[in-house]
Amino acid sequence: MLDLPEYANLPKLAIAPDHIVFNQGELATVDLNSEQTHYLKRVLRLNTGNRLVVMDGCGHWWLGILATEDIWQIQLLSEININHELPVQVNLIVSLPKNGFEDIIRSATELGVYRLIPIISSRTVLKPSEQKWQRWQKIAQEASEQSERQVIPEVLLPQSYSDFFDNSSQIVDFTNSAKFMAVTRMDAQPLPNLLAKVTHDQSIYLATGPEGGWTSEEINRAIALNFQPISLGKRILRAVTAPLAGLSIIASHLES
Amino acid sequence: MLDLPEYANLPKLAIAPDHIVFNQGELATVDLNSEQTHYLKRVLRLNTGNRLVVMDGCGHWWLGILATEDIWQIQLLSEININHELPVQVNLIVSLPKNGFEDIIRSATELGVYRLIPIISSRTVLKPSEQKWQRWQKIAQEASEQSERQVIPEVLLPQSYSDFFDNSSQIVDFTNSAKFMAVTRMDAQPLPNLLAKVTHDQSIYLATGPEGGWTSEEINRAIALNFQPISLGKRILRAVTAPLAGLSIIASHLES
Repeated sequence: MLDLPEYANLPKLAIAPDHIVFNQGELATVDLNSEQTHYLKRVLRLNTGNRLVVMDGCGHWWLGILATEDIWQIQLLSEININHELPVQVNLIVSLPKNGFEDIIRSATELGVYRLIPIISSRTVLKPSEQKWQRWQKIAQEASEQSERQVIPEVLLPQSYSDFFDNSSQIVDFTNSAKFMAVTRMDAQPLPNLLAKVTHDQSIYLATGPEGGWTSEEINRAIALNFQPISLGKRILRAVTAPLAGLSIIASHLES
Repeated sequence: MLDLPEYANLPKLAIAPDHIVFNQGELATVDLNSEQTHYLKRVLRLNTGNRLVVMDGCGHWWLGILATEDIWQIQLLSEININHELPVQVNLIVSLPKNGFEDIIRSATELGVYRLIPIISSRTVLKPSEQKWQRWQKIAQEASEQSERQVIPEVLLPQSYSDFFDNSSQIVDFTNSAKFMAVTRMDAQPLPNLLAKVTHDQSIYLATGPEGGWTSEEINRAIALNFQPISLGKRILRAVTAPLAGLSIIASHLES
C-alpha cells in the first residue's frame, strides 16, 4: 500500500465498486463510461498517462493511471493507505428542518457522519418527495469525494418519529451504542454538555430536533429507549446548526 | 434580579441601550418608536399590560410591561439574571468564503462568538461592499436575539491578511490569548486536534481559511505571531463548515 500525502493533490474520481475488474496476474482495471471519460478529459483536462486517485465509496482508494488512448480505461497501480473515517460509526437522527437539509448533508458528511436518518417529527413542516431523497444521496456522494472520505454516508428514507422510534430495532442496531438527544430546555434543568458525555462506544446516535425543538412527548419516548438528553451549549441553535455542532463535538472527541 | 426560566417564553424586544430612561425612585422606562410599536402590536400581537423581555445587546435583559394605552412605552420591572455567554471571548478570524459568509455569521453567533474578523486572504474571491458590512451587522444582531444571547457579536470591516496580521496589535489585544490557525495539511505532518489544545485562556482567536486553504506564507506569518496550527479533523472541511466546527469545539470545551 502507498501512503496518502504524496497523492493528496491528484485529481479524484469516484466509481462504483463493481466496475473494477481484477485480472489475474495483471493490474486491475476500471472501464469508464462516456460521462466519466468526458469528465476526465474536458473538466479535469487529463490525458493518457496522467495519474489520478480512484475511490470506490466503500473505504478503498487506488492510485490509477489513464492507460488507453481515448481515456476509456484506468489501470489501478496500487491501493492507497488512507483513513479519514471516524473510529466509530456516528449516526445522525435529524428532524427535517424547513430549509437547509441539503447543507446539513454536506457538512455532516465533511464531519464524518456514517448515516443520516431524516425524521418527520411533530413540528416538522417539510414533506419531502422520493426525488428529493435521490438528490440527497447524490449530495452525500459529492460531499464525500470533496471531503476526501472513504465511505459515502447512507441517507435513509425520511420516516415519521413513531415509525423510527417504535421500530428502531428493525432499522438500526442500538446494541452497544451511545444514544444522545439534543434538547434545548428540559424543565429548566441544566443538562450536561454532549462533550462531557460522549465516549468511544461501538456506535453513536445523536438526535437533533426541528425548529421549535422536540416535543416533551418525543423527548420522553427517546429517554425510554435509553437516549440521554444533552445540551449543545447555552444558546439556542437553529435546526441547521445543531447537527453540525453535535457532530463537531463528537468528531473532535474521537480524534483527539 | 429575576431568574430566567420563568420568562424564557415571553416575547423579546431588542433596544438600544441609550433608549432606557432611568427615573429616580421610579421604574426605568423605554420610549418606543413607531416601528417598534408596530412590531409589538401587529407582529407580536401584544396589548397594554402584557409582559415581555427587553434586551439591550450589551449583556442586560429586563422583564418589562407595556404600560401605556397605545404601546409607546415599556416600564422595566426588574433585571433578569441570565448568562448564555461563553466564559472567555472567542474571536473568529475568518477568510471570506465565496458564498455563505452570512450563514457563518448566523451560526457563529449561535455558537457564542464574541467578534468576527473577516479577512481577504490570497485565495479570497469575494470583495465585499460597505453595504454588505452593514447587512452583516444586522444579521449578527438578529441571530443574537434568536439564539438568546446577551451580547451582539461585533463584525469588523473586512481587511486584507497583511493589514490585519501586520497591524494586529492596533486592532486586537493578543495578550494572554490562545491563538489557533486551522490548517488542512502542513508538510504532511499530523496536526493536533483543536480540542486537545484549547484551554480556558483570557481570550481565544481562531483563524479559518478560504476555499483551498491558507497559503504556506500565510500559515508561516501566523505562526510567527504565535498562532498554533491545529486540525479540525481528518476530513477536508469547506470554508463555511470549518469556522462552525472550530467554534463548536471551543464552546463545548468551555461549557463542559
